[in-house]
Amino acid sequence: MLDYKLYYWDLPFRGNFIQLFLEEVGARYERCEAGDLYPKQRLTIRNPGMAPPYLYECKSKTYYAQMPAILMHLAREYDYLPQKAETHTLALKSILDCNDVLMEITNFYGMTMWDRESWKQFRSSRLADWMQIFEKTGSKHGLKGDSGFLLGDTISVADIAVTALFGTLTHAFPTLGRDLRTHAPQVAGLCQRVESRKSIKAFLDKQRSTLGNTYCGGQIEASLRQMMD
Amino acid sequence: MLDYKLYYWDLPFRGNFIQLFLEEVGARYERCEAGDLYPKQRLTIRNPGMAPPYLYECKSKTYYAQMPAILMHLAREYDYLPQKAETHTLALKSILDCNDVLMEITNFYGMTMWDRESWKQFRSSRLADWMQIFEKTGSKHGLKGDSGFLLGDTISVADIAVTALFGTLTHAFPTLGRDLRTHAPQVAGLCQRVESRKSIKAFLDKQRSTLGNTYCGGQIEASLRQMMD
Repeated sequence: MLDYKLYYWDLPFRGNFIQLFLEEVGARYERCEAGDLYPKQRLTIRNPGMAPPYLYECKSKTYYAQMPAILMHLAREYDYLPQKAETHTLALKSILDCNDVLMEITNFYGMTMWDRESWKQFRSSRLADWMQIFEKTGSKHGLKGDSGFLLGDTISVADIAVTALFGTLTHAFPTLGRDLRTHAPQVAGLCQRVESRKSIKAFLDKQRSTLGNTYCGGQIEASLRQMMD
Repeated sequence: MLDYKLYYWDLPFRGNFIQLFLEEVGARYERCEAGDLYPKQRLTIRNPGMAPPYLYECKSKTYYAQMPAILMHLAREYDYLPQKAETHTLALKSILDCNDVLMEITNFYGMTMWDRESWKQFRSSRLADWMQIFEKTGSKHGLKGDSGFLLGDTISVADIAVTALFGTLTHAFPTLGRDLRTHAPQVAGLCQRVESRKSIKAFLDKQRSTLGNTYCGGQIEASLRQMMD
């Protein structure tokens, strides 16, 4: 008996945000191929959505699209949201920041390929700024070098999202781990701690043994890999 | 005595999402120039954020970035969120859909300019699909041709967002009003009803008398205008 079905490609990129959460809370779920729904049924499901990921919630027979909305939905269901107004809002804001980084690091989902100059510029300025935004947010709200969480002393959906972003990215492209440790050392530590949580670790070990260092796939991953040489 | 300061350029584009909400609930606020914070102070404010809009909440002395997070924060403060889990999640999902349309209609914020072929393709397929997503969502949850709201029989933040998207877009580019009436006639009616609400109407009348049909500004607005000829 399943709780959820997640429709996404067999890629870590955006899917891991939801899979890490489902693993953390021990939900019973199945990852289904994005192509089972997309694109043919995207406008006919209950609550149509433009693109994967789609989460099907078995108990309500309802589909949800938009990764940040899916994560916030799950966070409410499983009580993974900060209680205070400020940190509650920052949980969503942090997920949206993660989503923007996904878009930017893939050059708007591969709209154009990276070249040396544009990548160097992005890596040294914009990507560094993003890392600092997370680091400063964490520092203000309870994150320390070897303990704490992004938005307080309890794990929240924001920790899952930040780990799905930077843990996945630095596993796929280890050279970027140096950038993270430079610009966001506490976030780097947080990602390691979250990736070590029992059910998340078991999931990642299995995923990484199957997919290796695959990230987002396609030409844009190839373009990113060329930049790392 | 102010409740909020909104830092954004004097443009309807993304700012109207927040301004329409603040007008609807009668909050005391001031729009400040984006340049007062951005880019110099974006990493040093309490809760740093990459780009405008920024909302400063006077009572908590806190800044929030990311339009969907700002809107959801305000919606909680002013009780403009659906109560049921499904429609609560759809409120955020709809705001995120709006945000994606802003990105797509500006060709990823002007990353490249529109040409006739790509615009024609976008308008007839992707933009039409977006309109249908909103229409189908509304139809399922309470929207009718001349009454109701996107997610039920009470106004919610989703109605403000959809109006800030399509009301603003079709005022700036009236020819797109035909597309909206074709693909999403009930949404077109909803936008008109929301734009007629007293405080929103007063705000829009004033904004439009000052800014005319300005939308997002810059080269990408010029490119969009060329496509409408």
